[in-house]
Order: sequence, then C-alpha cells, then structure tokens
Amino acid sequence: MIYKHASTDLVADKKRRQEATIPKDWLISQSVPVDNVSPVTTIAETCGLLTDKEVLITNSEISLLLKKLASAEWSSVEVTIAFYKRAIIAHQLVNCLTEIFVDRAVARARELDEHLRSTGRVVGPLHGLPVSLKDQICVKGVETTMGYVSWIGRYAQKNASLVDILYECGANPFVQTNVPQTLMWAETYNNVFGRTVNPHNRSLTSGGSSGGEGALMAMRGSPLGVGSDIGGSIRVPAAFCGSYGLRPSYGRIPYAGAVNSLEGQDSVPSVFGPICNSLDGVKIFMKAVIDSKPWLKDPLAVRKAWDEEAYQLAEHGYGKSLVFGIVWNNGAKVPHPPVTRALEMTKAALVAAGHKVVDWDPVGHVEICEALVGIWNAGFLKDFEVLSKESGEPLVDTMVPDPTGVEVKPDYRPTAESAASAYELWQLHKAKLKIRQEHLAMWEETAKTTGTGRPVDAIISPVAPYAAPPHGKSSDAAYTAVFNVLDYPSCVFPVTRVDPVKDAKKPPHKFISTADKENYDFYDPQVFLNAPVGLQLSSRTLEEEAVIAMTEIVDAALKAYKGT
Amino acid sequence: MIYKHASTDLVADKKRRQEATIPKDWLISQSVPVDNVSPVTTIAETCGLLTDKEVLITNSEISLLLKKLASAEWSSVEVTIAFYKRAIIAHQLVNCLTEIFVDRAVARARELDEHLRSTGRVVGPLHGLPVSLKDQICVKGVETTMGYVSWIGRYAQKNASLVDILYECGANPFVQTNVPQTLMWAETYNNVFGRTVNPHNRSLTSGGSSGGEGALMAMRGSPLGVGSDIGGSIRVPAAFCGSYGLRPSYGRIPYAGAVNSLEGQDSVPSVFGPICNSLDGVKIFMKAVIDSKPWLKDPLAVRKAWDEEAYQLAEHGYGKSLVFGIVWNNGAKVPHPPVTRALEMTKAALVAAGHKVVDWDPVGHVEICEALVGIWNAGFLKDFEVLSKESGEPLVDTMVPDPTGVEVKPDYRPTAESAASAYELWQLHKAKLKIRQEHLAMWEETAKTTGTGRPVDAIISPVAPYAAPPHGKSSDAAYTAVFNVLDYPSCVFPVTRVDPVKDAKKPPHKFISTADKENYDFYDPQVFLNAPVGLQLSSRTLEEEAVIAMTEIVDAALKAYKGT
Repeated sequence: MIYKHASTDLVADKKRRQEATIPKDWLISQSVPVDNVSPVTTIAETCGLLTDKEVLITNSEISLLLKKLASAEWSSVEVTIAFYKRAIIAHQLVNCLTEIFVDRAVARARELDEHLRSTGRVVGPLHGLPVSLKDQICVKGVETTMGYVSWIGRYAQKNASLVDILYECGANPFVQTNVPQTLMWAETYNNVFGRTVNPHNRSLTSGGSSGGEGALMAMRGSPLGVGSDIGGSIRVPAAFCGSYGLRPSYGRIPYAGAVNSLEGQDSVPSVFGPICNSLDGVKIFMKAVIDSKPWLKDPLAVRKAWDEEAYQLAEHGYGKSLVFGIVWNNGAKVPHPPVTRALEMTKAALVAAGHKVVDWDPVGHVEICEALVGIWNAGFLKDFEVLSKESGEPLVDTMVPDPTGVEVKPDYRPTAESAASAYELWQLHKAKLKIRQEHLAMWEETAKTTGTGRPVDAIISPVAPYAAPPHGKSSDAAYTAVFNVLDYPSCVFPVTRVDPVKDAKKPPHKFISTADKENYDFYDPQVFLNAPVGLQLSSRTLEEEAVIAMTEIVDAALKAYKGT
Repeated sequence: MIYKHASTDLVADKKRRQEATIPKDWLISQSVPVDNVSPVTTIAETCGLLTDKEVLITNSEISLLLKKLASAEWSSVEVTIAFYKRAIIAHQLVNCLTEIFVDRAVARARELDEHLRSTGRVVGPLHGLPVSLKDQICVKGVETTMGYVSWIGRYAQKNASLVDILYECGANPFVQTNVPQTLMWAETYNNVFGRTVNPHNRSLTSGGSSGGEGALMAMRGSPLGVGSDIGGSIRVPAAFCGSYGLRPSYGRIPYAGAVNSLEGQDSVPSVFGPICNSLDGVKIFMKAVIDSKPWLKDPLAVRKAWDEEAYQLAEHGYGKSLVFGIVWNNGAKVPHPPVTRALEMTKAALVAAGHKVVDWDPVGHVEICEALVGIWNAGFLKDFEVLSKESGEPLVDTMVPDPTGVEVKPDYRPTAESAASAYELWQLHKAKLKIRQEHLAMWEETAKTTGTGRPVDAIISPVAPYAAPPHGKSSDAAYTAVFNVLDYPSCVFPVTRVDPVKDAKKPPHKFISTADKENYDFYDPQVFLNAPVGLQLSSRTLEEEAVIAMTEIVDAALKAYKGT
C-alpha cells in the first residue's frame, strides 16, 4: 500500500513494529506463486517450516486438539507454536494478522502445561487451545488499533470480558486479525495494515469485516477464531473462506470491554461469535463461554444457561424429519450459479437424509435492509469524523484496488449529511420492530403447512449473491444483514467451490433491478475460480443451541451426499 | 376539570360515553366524605352495593380466588361482577378507570364457566380471573386513548400479545385504567380523563404513570393489574397505594401490540409487570405469562423459560442467610422520615429472621439519572408534537392542581429544543453502558465482604424520597429510574403507613443540594396522613424468579416482625 498522508510515518512505524514481532526463522524462504489466482492454502504444509507433527496438529479438529491437550499427549506449547508458525506463514501470504505476541503466548502455554502437569487437571474446557481474535477484542497490554490510524499506540488497559473468559477456560489468545476501516465493509482493507486477501484465490476478497479471521482459518493458522457480526461480518468471511461461523443473538456472547465503531449504536448491536474449520468448534466455544456465566461480567449478556435440551432439538422433534425453508433469492439480487448450485445440493442432501425442504418467501428482506442502512448512517459519518480527527486519516470510500497503488483518496472527508435526529432514529426503530413482528407471525403461521405441527424449523439461505468476489466487489450485505435485524442466530457451513464447468454463466434472467443486472454482469466462473461457497442456517432469536444442532444435521447430510 | 380548548367537545363526548358504560345501579347513593383526606378504601364494603360474598371475593388473595374458580365453587361470572362493581365504586371515588365494558367481560366469564362445566378443565392457570390493564395494553375492539385527546375514538384493531396470552391463560381483562399524558409522570393526570387520586388520602397522588392501577388496587377493585414501567411507573403507584408491583427486566413480559409514548425509544425500554394486593399474584402472573412462551408472539420477548431453580434461590444459598444491601439515600435526596423508618423496620425484620443487612453505596445513581433524562428528552417534545398535532391539545407542564380549575395552560406548545441527534444519543448509550458495567463489577466485588462467598443477594431501597405526596409533588423518579437503566428487576412491597407520631419532622440535616432542601421542606406528617410506604427489592437482570422469592422472604419477615 502506498498511502500518502501526514500520518504515513505513524503507519510505517506501526508496520515496522509489526514486522519486528515475527520470528526471523518463520519467514518463508521457498518461492511462492507470483500469480494472484493459485491457492496458497497448502503452502504452509510444503514450505518446510512446519514439522510433520505441526502439520498434523494444525490439521486437527478442535475436539481432537482438546482431547490431546487434556491428556497431555500434545503440550500446549507445541500446539501453540504449531499454530503460531502456520499463522505467521499465512500472514506472509494473505496479510491477515495485526498483532503478534509470540513470547507471551508461549509463556501462557508453558503455564498451562505446568498447571496440568502439577495438578493433573485442565484449567478449563478450552485448555491449551490457541484462539485468534479480531482486532477489536482487547487483550491487556496489546495494541488495539482496529484499523484506525488514530488508534496506533493504543494499548489495551484491560481484557475484554470475553478474553477474561477465554483465559479462565484455559484458552490461549495468540494473534489478532485484520479488519476493514470502520468495520462496516464486507471486505478487509484499512489505512494501517492494508488488505487481507483470500487464500483460495488471492485476486478475491477474504470478505469482512472479520476478514483477517476468515483468511487465517482458510490457511489453518488458528483452530478457533472470534469475529464480530453487525451485518454479516462473521458469516461473509466464513463463507468466502470455506469455514464455519456462527452469528449468535444479541448478548449471548459478552461484548464488554471490546472496542468498536459506531459505539453506542444499540439499535442493531454487533455480536461476537466463533469462526473455525470444523463445526465442533462452534459448539465447544459457545458452550464454554455460556457455561462461564458471561452475565456476571457484561451487563448486556443474557442470563440464559446453555440449554442441552434445546441442543437435543427438543422443540424441533428431536431432529427427526426437520422442515427447512430455502431462500433461493432475496427479491433484490439473484445469486450467481455456484450459490444456487450450493442451495440445490443442500436441498438434495437434506431430502436424501429424510428431511423436508420448502421454499421460503423472503418477505420484508428489502425493507429490513433499508431500515438497517438508515440506522447505521444515522451517526456513521460523525462517528468517523470524531475517530479520525486525531490522525486526519481519510475515509476509505471504495474497496476497489487503485491501479496506481494509492488506495485511498487522501482528501476524502465527507460531511455528515446523512445524520439523523434521535427522533428520526426512533422512527426507524418502529419500522424495524414492525418488520420483526410480522416476520415472527409469518414464521409461526408456517405450522399450518409443514405437516409436522411445528413451524418451519430453520431457514437456509445464501450468505451473499456471489461466492468470494474480486476485491472491491463485495458490496452487498443484504443476505446476511437481514438476520442481524431479525436477531436470528445464523450459522455458516461450507458447501462447495466454484467450478467453471458446473457453474457456467446462465443466460440473462428477468432482472429485478439495476443492481440485480450488475450482479449478473460481473459473474464469470473463471474470475471466481476455486472460491468456496457457503450457506447459512438461521432460526429463532436465542436458539443458538438448536441452530448449531441443525447445522450439524445439514453438514452431515451434505457430507453423506457428497460422499455418494 | 375545566379545560378550555378546541378539542373540549371531543373530551366531553368521550367522558359522556364513559359515563354511559357504568350500570346505573352500581352508582353510589350513600353520601361519601366530602373532605379529601379521609380514606375511601373501605367505602365499597359499607356503601351497600356489594353483597357479603362480593366483599369476601374482592378481599381474597389471588391464589385463593384461582382455587375457588378452578373448583367452580365461585363462578367466573360472580367473581367478575364482584370486582367490576368494586372497580366502578372505586372509579366514582378516585377516578381510576378509562375503559369500562361490563357486558363483554361478563360474557367472557360466562364462557369460562361453561368451558369448566362442560369439560371439567380450566382454560389455563388464570381461569376466571378478572385482570385490569393500563390504558395502553390494547384489547381488540376497545378504545385505547392512553390519555391523548388525539387518540379519542381509536379502537384497537387487535389484542396486544400480552392480552392474547392472558385470554389463553383463562384471564378476563375487564377494565382499563388511567395514565398521565405522555406516560412520563409519576402522577396520573391527562386532558381526557383528568386526575386519579389516592384512595388512602385523596389529597395525595396515586403516583404514576400506572396510577389508575395503583388506585384501583388500593380500592380492591381488581385482583391483578398490569402496568408499565419506564422509570418507576409500576413501582411508584404500587408503593404510594400500598400494593405489590414488579418491574421485570426488558423483554421478560411481551410488549408487542401495545401502544406507548416515545415509541421507537429503545435505549431504556418500558416494560409491563403486575400490580396486586398479595405477593402470590406477582409470581402467578409472571409464571403464567412466561410459561406461555411469549417469544413466539413478540420478537423482543426473551426466550427464557420460567426457572424454578432460580425461584428456589439456587444461586442465593436457597434463601438461607441472605445478605441485603440497603440504600438509605441515593446521594441526591434524603428520604422523608416515614421512608427511613420503613427501611429501619425492614432491616430489623430481616436481621430478626436471620439474614444479614449491609449498607449499599448508591454509586452512579446521579449519573444514571442524568443519562436517562438525556435519552428521554432526545425526542420527547418532537414525539409529543406529532402525537398531539391532530387535536392540538397542550402539553401538561405541571401536575400541580390549578386553583382556578383550569388545569392546563391551553397554549403551552414547547419547541423541541432539547432534541438530540442520533450521534448524541449514541454517546448517551456509551455513558449508560459504562455505568452498567461499573455497577455490575461493583456488585460482583461485594462477594469479598459478605461472608457468604456470594455477592450481596439483593438491594432494598426507597421507591421515592417520600410517601405518596400531595398532587404536583411527585416529581422525582430517581430512586426507581436507576433500576430501569441498570435493568434490574425490582419488586415493591408495602411496609408501613405515615404516622404523625412516629414520623415527626426531623431537624434539618446537612442538605446535599437545593433539591434535597426542597424535599425536606415540604415534609409535614399531617399532610402525608395515612400514606402507605413501600420499598423495592432489586437484583440482577433477568432474575425475576429470585427477586420474587426474595421479596417473599422480606414480606414474611416484615409480617412476622410487625406481628411481634
């Protein structure tokens, strides 16, 4: 990134400091692909930096890792170093990290090993597990810039509540990961750390705003990451990078003590949730955090214990003959062929597994997104004006790479003309509440037609109308944001990859809108080569347990289907 | 009320229509006290309109009523008529009702009786129980004016979700009760229905905003009422009228489909909760509503089942040797002598019952109230401007009765100069969240000093710095509003009454502020004669079950203490 600005020195210094935290013998010496299309996901395994055991460790599922750690068969130190090395390799290829603190994490791992050795007991359910954190989840003593030039040099004075809980659970926070400026993009680029790219095809975006986490997962540089989601920021990178990711309901996972943009915007709160390469990690993370009673640390955390009955799907016929509603398109943009194929595969897999699949009418999706954009914009520019005042850094107004290399217009300083009054914001809340009430009533009504006596059990929908697109093209969060407004927990699962043969461009359909046509126009299977395609499963507010369990059912059905 | 305004005809017509709904043979013929000080609470029993059985019914606790109703020993029709008559008597004495629909309620009672007779089963846990509703909880087909002239003639198109649930539970909504204009007062007066007064002493306020409910309870004109609370609106009238009242946490009881002022103001949401004359009703109401899964009807209702373990005080040592923190004053106003005496009585009762009582430092109470007022004012005047546009009714700017009888300045139309931007509102949210986090941390810290290993179990505090004051003097909601911001469920229980001998005026203390001095100055035990004094018990967010159980313990301790 060439970025001309008075704060350039600050940024250059921060980058230098970041580089200095990388152990020299973890630098890749092997030549890596110079093109931007070939996947870099396996370079960690071939570049010679990882031992066979480190490859084995970093390719393991979380439940296996925890078992090996708890039995001391694998030490926390060796697991931490294995993932750290792989994370550093990832960073060199896709620019996914912000904060690196190897000594501290290894010291923590050593303490955990010593505890286990001396007491025979694990510290908690995540004993020894390295955990990566989006660069807003404060770790005491570590810089939290969250991609703002103004925040360079801001060292966290205390842990976020979630970090306290992770430590209590025996986890080992070991890196922080990149974000877009303001966090309000479905890509990952900022004036401090630059751009994170997609490991499956570096000409494509990793998604955002938890794009550092997504890219790190695709590189298997962390077993478990924590992202945040206000409009899709966990789910978009999870889907674009081929991982699993859960957007929990408001307040199920504590947010206290973390930093954020649009702070005080409570209308549609951002939430934290897990991103990982195996679905077991989603449940393990959620149960561990909820079992730790986060409501004793965060006043906004909901006092609601982990509900094992709900996880057994007591309210969903115990998982027998579930009924899924599929959103084929949201009434705004028809998804690209690979996304539609993923929906078709999922439908076929579920039918083959004995479940029922019906079409879901995306009533209200467009209105929901309009209300949401109004809420975000109510104070967005003023918020940025205040946050950027110290450094004078310009607002990023596009994620499209500039061919000249100057990525950001140095003088772009918009005025807060979209600002709203509190009263106007209240009117948006009324509109939002009305939609939520209608959506709930509509969902309840489906009990009359499912044949099970229950309403539809879950909704399966695209995460975006495209797989991971080229940089600058991930501009539409409507498919995900709708569930932030409805506050439905939603879990992303990987389904397939873009295949030029199976996913050939289709003849033009009858376009819903100009945006729909533009979305159609930019599809070319060669451009999206190798891009993962994920979908999301959503159910009712505070039904995290059921959403995880139903995603497990869908995931198993897909695996069985693909195996045949 | 003499009220000069273009909409006077509308109001006169509404009052005429209200009068027409009162059965003529339920009008009091007996002469009633002409003074405004003598209690009118027992006139219902002496005026000759109620039979002995009706007196027995209306003096019964809710659990007994439900038992008699379920066994068909008392029919729903006779219970409904008994309470209806007593409610109408009450209305003639204290002006507490807005909507009266005798035929409809009796027809419903007849249906319930018929159901029980033909099936042998009750419709639900509240079978046959008359329930009064604050005039914002819409009942299909009934006018909901909520004290606004503009809303005269607005008939509810559907039931509020809570009303649907009450019907499903077998309850019988039978009257609606008076409110102050805008609902944002701790007294009850509006341009449509006028003023509700305190049955224990009509020169005193019934409190507000659920002041119609409070007055009706003091008259025993309803076994169970539902009020709303955004800053104390359930607790203030419950305390001023000598009843019990619970302010639940946000979203525990469904609000969907009700009307409100400041709609869309989500920063500190109003909540619904029960008011009644026996504590059993609080639990019965809460359990019945929560067991009906309100989250399937209201997207903001928290998916959290009634927790019997929590009610057994599993997290509070099963109720043995509890530790209570007492707020003696909130750092803004020293309570009047009867309130302090109520705190002393409660402390003595709890100590006698084997519990521990410590002083609670009201850290942050003043800042909390400042943030809250900022939030309310952010759009308050604009909200009123829009709501009152149709009728042009003036804003009520004082609750002090005007000696000329013209209660409201006809031309008072303030401009929205206190309006805030959305961004400014977000900053208030940040301040509020910081306070909530600090308060939670402070509470957790008390575990180090209680001696039980647990933090303080509950806080006991005044509901106001005075007992029910004269009209126009209930201007301070700080003691209650603090728990709306902290979102701590709080239950009011009656303790004593103002006693001129025990509660003599004290010599001036060192005043905290001008407001504190003013509060001191207006105390005179003769003025407050017979005013009930209630206190509130508060604990953590979503701990309704524990708050109810602990209030039962305090209530029993007080009864034992007073009995000795």
